[in-house]
Parts: sequence; structure tokens; C-alpha cells
Amino acid sequence: MSTAYAELESRWAEILDLQHGQSILGWDQEVMMPPGGANLRAHTLATLAGVIHGRVSDKGLAKLVEQLHGRRATLRPAERRAVDLVRREVRKATSIPARLATDIALAESECVESWRVARAAKSWTGFKKDLARMVALKREVAGLRAGKGPLYDALLDDFEPGATMAGIDPLLDALKELTVPLLQRVVAAKRKVPLRPFVGRFAVDAQRAFSRSVVTAMGIDLERARLDLSTHPFCGGVAPGDVRMTSRFDERDTRGGLFGAIHEAGHGLYEQGLDPKRARSPLGGAISMAIHESQSRLWENNVARGRAFWKHWLPRMKKAHPQLKDVTLDEVFAASNVMGPSMIRVESDELTYNLHIVLRYEIERDLIEGRIEASDLRDRWNEGMRALLGIVPKHDGEGVLQDIHWASGLFGYFPTYSLGNLYAAQFMEAARKAIGDLDARLAKGDLATLREWLRKNVHRHDQTVDAATLVKKVTGKPLSVDAFARHITAKVDAIYG
Amino acid sequence: MSTAYAELESRWAEILDLQHGQSILGWDQEVMMPPGGANLRAHTLATLAGVIHGRVSDKGLAKLVEQLHGRRATLRPAERRAVDLVRREVRKATSIPARLATDIALAESECVESWRVARAAKSWTGFKKDLARMVALKREVAGLRAGKGPLYDALLDDFEPGATMAGIDPLLDALKELTVPLLQRVVAAKRKVPLRPFVGRFAVDAQRAFSRSVVTAMGIDLERARLDLSTHPFCGGVAPGDVRMTSRFDERDTRGGLFGAIHEAGHGLYEQGLDPKRARSPLGGAISMAIHESQSRLWENNVARGRAFWKHWLPRMKKAHPQLKDVTLDEVFAASNVMGPSMIRVESDELTYNLHIVLRYEIERDLIEGRIEASDLRDRWNEGMRALLGIVPKHDGEGVLQDIHWASGLFGYFPTYSLGNLYAAQFMEAARKAIGDLDARLAKGDLATLREWLRKNVHRHDQTVDAATLVKKVTGKPLSVDAFARHITAKVDAIYG
Repeated sequence: MSTAYAELESRWAEILDLQHGQSILGWDQEVMMPPGGANLRAHTLATLAGVIHGRVSDKGLAKLVEQLHGRRATLRPAERRAVDLVRREVRKATSIPARLATDIALAESECVESWRVARAAKSWTGFKKDLARMVALKREVAGLRAGKGPLYDALLDDFEPGATMAGIDPLLDALKELTVPLLQRVVAAKRKVPLRPFVGRFAVDAQRAFSRSVVTAMGIDLERARLDLSTHPFCGGVAPGDVRMTSRFDERDTRGGLFGAIHEAGHGLYEQGLDPKRARSPLGGAISMAIHESQSRLWENNVARGRAFWKHWLPRMKKAHPQLKDVTLDEVFAASNVMGPSMIRVESDELTYNLHIVLRYEIERDLIEGRIEASDLRDRWNEGMRALLGIVPKHDGEGVLQDIHWASGLFGYFPTYSLGNLYAAQFMEAARKAIGDLDARLAKGDLATLREWLRKNVHRHDQTVDAATLVKKVTGKPLSVDAFARHITAKVDAIYG
Repeated sequence: MSTAYAELESRWAEILDLQHGQSILGWDQEVMMPPGGANLRAHTLATLAGVIHGRVSDKGLAKLVEQLHGRRATLRPAERRAVDLVRREVRKATSIPARLATDIALAESECVESWRVARAAKSWTGFKKDLARMVALKREVAGLRAGKGPLYDALLDDFEPGATMAGIDPLLDALKELTVPLLQRVVAAKRKVPLRPFVGRFAVDAQRAFSRSVVTAMGIDLERARLDLSTHPFCGGVAPGDVRMTSRFDERDTRGGLFGAIHEAGHGLYEQGLDPKRARSPLGGAISMAIHESQSRLWENNVARGRAFWKHWLPRMKKAHPQLKDVTLDEVFAASNVMGPSMIRVESDELTYNLHIVLRYEIERDLIEGRIEASDLRDRWNEGMRALLGIVPKHDGEGVLQDIHWASGLFGYFPTYSLGNLYAAQFMEAARKAIGDLDARLAKGDLATLREWLRKNVHRHDQTVDAATLVKKVTGKPLSVDAFARHITAKVDAIYG
């Protein structure tokens, strides 16, 4: 290993250390911090972000990385990839003048505040101007980074390295073409699926214990993780040895608590499956948001909303909640997969979820590319909802104001959710092929075989490969909607057939 | 405010932000972190310490602070004090060459590891060499900082700004002369105080709820604090708005849980009583370790081990633990104040505690001053125990190896515990004088009057004054053993009289 490369690794290790600190402080803020700590914590996180930005945009580091990049032919392949990954971050950090970075940080706070007020008032009007400013700033950032490529691609890259509009457009178009007719079938079937397996009165302690037993069976290692409660469930994994997952339980509806815990545990298994030896290396960590999301969705939708899963777990759920003693496998399977149009993305089902994403993707792409303006947003939203889902929001609170992403400046994030769904289905098909009796195993409560397959085939690579390489390696094919189409069509057939 | 002073404040605010992050990460490490996180957390804390050290020892800051110090006559008094406080930290940080700082950090890890092994083996022999190296490094540090003054004073200053051997020697000598004959009286009395108010079988949940009700009555505001469990109770307060206290409960002995919680809440009240407006200012924060300790000891020893306190709380403790229904006020007062020689400092009583400190103080002072060598330590210890407490450790685990302080390089810390006891007694006398009916109030469960008096007279000053100025301001006199002598003699008279 050259001295220059060793220096790169050691500088980057310290940057990762500070990011780890940032993650834990962010987790603490959501899960542990008393309200009185909010003000000081905001300062601490801002100062720490400044320190990290200073380190990533440090001139010495930039020089080092360009020097190594200049002689990349002499590096070993893993070193070459590490140099490319670091260079990408360094270039991103140095492309933005300090003035613009400060403007964006300020605009984010202001825009989120204005969004909160507007959402509470259920009216888009007061939010328009702040959002327009945010979009202008984001376009400016994208312009500095994009080179000759499209502006939107430069923003995508923050969440999904290597992804482009040119790649995503056909995938999301195909997803739309698949979903709209399936939704029409669901609506036409007029079947009202009984929800009694999940809706009623359920002791929160019993819910918590049951979901804990599921995630433990999935293989979450509690010597290297915590399960806590928070208003918005999330997985704040920072490294294989310290993963923080949260849930929320509702006495009247167990779905959010159970499927939420399984979803976050899918993220958690990915983090725990990363190679601990790479925890402080540029090659360590998750590949992308979509690959991360594929792991949570796979466990939530492809496993835990499946019939085989419930063969084993329904009797156990009945022990936790004795009032369910008469519930059948068909009932719990159907209730896990109720489909139909709804207003709120985070409450939507596996089928319509992707339509919510298509709506947001098309809008934000067109916004950043300058095809529409921020002031058009609400109308575009409501038209899109009618066209895709056949319903129109009664007010902006359940419409264009429902998500925090745009107010926070997160443009390019939404599509990773649907890409995650597609990856999940494609990985699951590959797993089913590799493990001949996977469903029989799931039906016996064996979640370990699948987990180990994912660990070996997906998790353990860390960032040594990119998402496109990974999916070809694991499934033999580039990402497409095919596997998801088979998966979701089978569910629609079974329940709304 | 001058531009230069404003820059000093804003630079220091960011340093405090990062220290706040450090505190929370340290708290998380003890209270929340899964075991798998240990390795990465050590790196994160080390990197963050490096960042903070880099900021404090930054040449630009040093230049700024010297420039402001040069024209201190033109500054307002508060600014002048702030400049002095920052200059003290900057000089401390810049006095140590990077090589020495690294050597010390490494020596600390090695020495603590070697101490753990030696303590488990109950034998001092394997620890001697590592400790000698630590002492040599600490002498080197002290030499760089001390100027013409004694080496030990330079180390004291880390914990008790302004304190000197010349000031502490007479206080601890007087404390020794007070305590040894009192202990002889206690031993001669041969009274065996029944422990049944605290020793037996006590439900942990009920203990926890009872101690929570006491600390809430003390005035701990849970919107600005957390109470958790940890192996070693501590208060990780970071600012008035976010104070983290921990306790530990033992089913068979409630004393550690209850008095421990009250002790940490005393620290917590100090933190919560600091001025939130100074949270990011050089003048914010606690004055010194001894003043901090005075607040915990005052509540633990001067209040909660007092008869008036129990008048109100004994009936409530009986509700929590119904088996105590026959316990009398005399019994609970005596059991709160059992005295007698013992081996372990942290388990010792209010009287003998100071002898444990005298022993450590004399040894570490003589070590750093070169009057004895590290190899003499064990013999010095055992002789000191015989002379002061009349007992000799059966092995080094309950002797010279019992505390982690020296292995961690903390020389100059021990005396602050006894100084804290002296400040506590002196503050309590002043409070009793100012609040004519204080004991009647405590007997009615009114802890708020005392708390508000402490808040106004002690807490709210932050670091605008030093400890010596504070004690004169609050009590009219410099620190002495007089108040403590009256307090402890009265207790010995009452229980062993």
C-alpha cells in the first residue's frame, strides 16, 4: 500500500468517525433527548456538520485524492474503487462555495418551518415562496455539479450513486403501466378485506414482545443493536456493531408496529451484515439508498406479507393476542395485503405505493429540469393523484404538503423507494431460485437461511461494487420491473382475483 | 463588544458545541450503546477529542486571546473574565507538544488495562511499571505548565482552577485532625446501628419510583433531564437544558440507589440551575469539580441524611416498602449515618470518607512532587490505612488498586471530593442562616426553598466568579473545616454520643 493511499484511508477513517458521532447524536435527538436539549443539540449538529464538511473539502485531501486518481492504473482494484468513492465525495463538497452551503442550510430551516405552518393550516399558499427559493438553490447546486449532464442527475447522485433520469424514466414508466391497470382490477373487484387480524384492541406490551420475537428470529443481534420507541420509526445504523432501530405501537392497529419493526429490522440486518473490518474504510457502508430500501422492503413485503411467513407466525401472534384465536391463514394473508387508492404515501399499500412515488418523481424531476415551476406544484399534484390513483386530496395537508422531503431540500430521494421495491423483488426471486425450498423454510419459521443468503450475496460487499453491478452479480440481470410485476400480480390475483 | 471579542465568543461556542457532543456520546457509551459499538465509539471519541484539541490549540485562537489579554484593561469585567478563562484553556492545550499528548493518551489506555488485570489478580506487582510511566508523563506535563510553581499545582488546576497545595494542605490537615479522634469515639462507642430501614428485600420498581419522587421534589425538571440506569451512577450534565443522571438499584440494600440518586440529582440541579443564556459562552458551566461536588454532597449528606428530611420522607418510604411500617425516625436517621472504618472509599461513610481522601491526596501530591516514587505506593497506602483508619487491606484489590483515577492519569482530582464536603457544609450553614426555618421546611417536605436559594446564590453565577470568590460571597468567609466540623460532630454526638 502506498503512503499516499494509506494517508487517504486514515483521513477518511476520521471523517467516518465523526459521521458516526453525528448518527448517534441524531438518534439521541429523536429517541432520548429531553425537550430542553433541542436548542443546544441543533448547534452541536451544525458545528459537527461544519467540521465534517471542512475535513471533506480540505485542500490537502483534494490534492491527495487527485494525485491518487492520476495514477489509478497503478493501484489495486479495491484501492482504485476507494479512491473513486472518496473523490466523488470530495468533488461534491468542494463544488459548492461556502456562501451557497450556508444559504442552503438556512433555507432548509426556514422552508421546513414554513412547511410545518402550511401543513398545519392545510394550505399550500404560504409555503410556495419558500419552496421556490429552495428549488432555485437546488438548481444552482445541481448546475455546479452536473457538468454537461442533466441537473436532476446531479441531485440523484446524492442518494443513488450512478443513477440517472435516463435509467429511471423507463423503470418508473413501466411501473406505472403495470400498476394502474392492476389498481383498476382491485377497485373493480369491490372486495372488502376484513381487517380483524390487525385492527381492534391489542395490548401494546404484547405487540412489542411479538415484534421483538420476529426481528430476533430474522437474526437481529441485540449485542450489536438496540430496539427503541420513537414517533417516526427509523433505523439509525452506524456500523455493523451498533445499529439503532425504532418502532411505534398503536393499541388499535398492529400493522404499523409489526410491519414497521420488520421493515427497520431489514435495514438493520443490512447494517449488521456489512463487513466490520471495513467499518472505518472508504469501501465500508451501504451501496445506496435503493439497495438499503430493498432490504427493508424485502423483509416487510416479500417475506412478512407472504403466506409462507404467516404459516409459522400466525399461531404465535394468536398466543400474543388470544382474541385472534379464530383467525385463518387466508384472513391474515389478505389483511396483510389490503390494496386500494389512498391519499397518504406512508400509509399506502405495496401496490399503490409506487404510484405515490411516480407522482413525486415526475414532479421533482420536471421542477429541477425547469419544465415546471414551484408555483405549479399543487395543481400538478392534484392532477397526478386523479390520473394515477383516481382520487383528489380534500386539502393540501393530505396532498402536496404531506411529505417533509422537498421542504428539507431532498430532491432525488423519492425514486429510491420504488427502486428499492424493484431490487427487493428481483433479489427475492434470485433467493428463491438459489434456495430451492425457501417457502417451505419460511413456513417452518426458518428465516436464517434467507438472511444468510442475503448477507453473503448482498450485505457483505459493502461498497466494493455499485448497485448496477450488484444486481447483475446477484440476479444475472439488470434491474427491471419483471420480478416485481410477477410478485404483485400474484398477490392481486390471490386476493382480488 | 469588539470584533475580536465577538470572534473569541463564536470560536469558543463551537468548541463547547463539540464538547457537548462528546458528553452525549460518552453518556450513550455508558448507558445505551450495545457492546458491539465499543470499538468504533473509542475511535469516534478519540477523533472528536483530536478535533477539539485542534480547535483549542489553534494558532489563530491563541493569537486572538493574547491580543485581547494584552488590552484587557479596555474590556468590560465579564469579557475580561471570559478572556482569562479561555486563555487558561488555550495555554494548557498549547503547552503540551503533540508527541506528549499522544504518549499520554496511549499510556492511559495501557495503564487502565494493566490496572484492570492487576485488580482482578488482587496484586499490585504487575501494575507498578505502567503506573511509574504514567507518573513520569504527568510530571513532564506538570513541568511544562507549572512555571516556577509546584508541579502538583499545575495538575490540580485541571479540576480545581486556582487551588494550590499551599491552600489545600492546611484544610486537609485540619480535616484529618478533626476526623481521627471522632472516628476513635465512634469505634469506642461499640454501638451497632441496626440497618433494617435500608437492608433486607426491597422491590426494585418501588425503590426506583420512591427515589424518583424524591428527586422530583428536589426540583429536577424532567423536561430538561433524563434518569436512567447504569453500572456506575453518574451525572453527565451537558447544559441546563439536557442533564443526564443515572442510578443503580440493589434489591438487598436501598442505600446506594436512594442516596446515589439524590447525590446525582444534586449535580443535576447545579447543571439545571446554570444560566441557559450562557450555555455557549466561555462564562457558562460549572466553576470547578469541588463546587460541583458540594452540590451533590449537600443534598446527599447535609439534607437527605438529616433528621428533618426523614420526618417528611419516612412515611413515604413506608408506603413504597410496607415492611418498614414499624421503623422510627431515630432508626432511619441512625441507619443513614452509620460510621466506622472500611476499606473502600466509595462505600465509606460521611466521616471516614475524608480520611480516604487524605490518604490519596498525600500520596499523589508526594508522588508528583518527587518525594516518593511509584514503587513506594503500596507500602505508603497500607501504612496510611493503618494510621488513619486503623485497618490494613487484606489484598491490593481492596487497597491501592481500588480506584481507577491514577491509572487514568487523574492526579489532582481526589482532593476535590473533600473540598466539596467542606463547601457543602459551609453553604448549608449559610442557607440555614438565610432561611430561618429551613429545618422546619425540610421536615414538611419543602425542598424548593433550599433549591431556590442554591440556584440564586450558587448555581446562577456559572463561571463569572471563581470558587474562592463564590464561597466568600455566599458565606462571608473563606473555605475552612469549621462548618463541616460542627455538622459532623453533631452527628457523631447524636448517634455515637
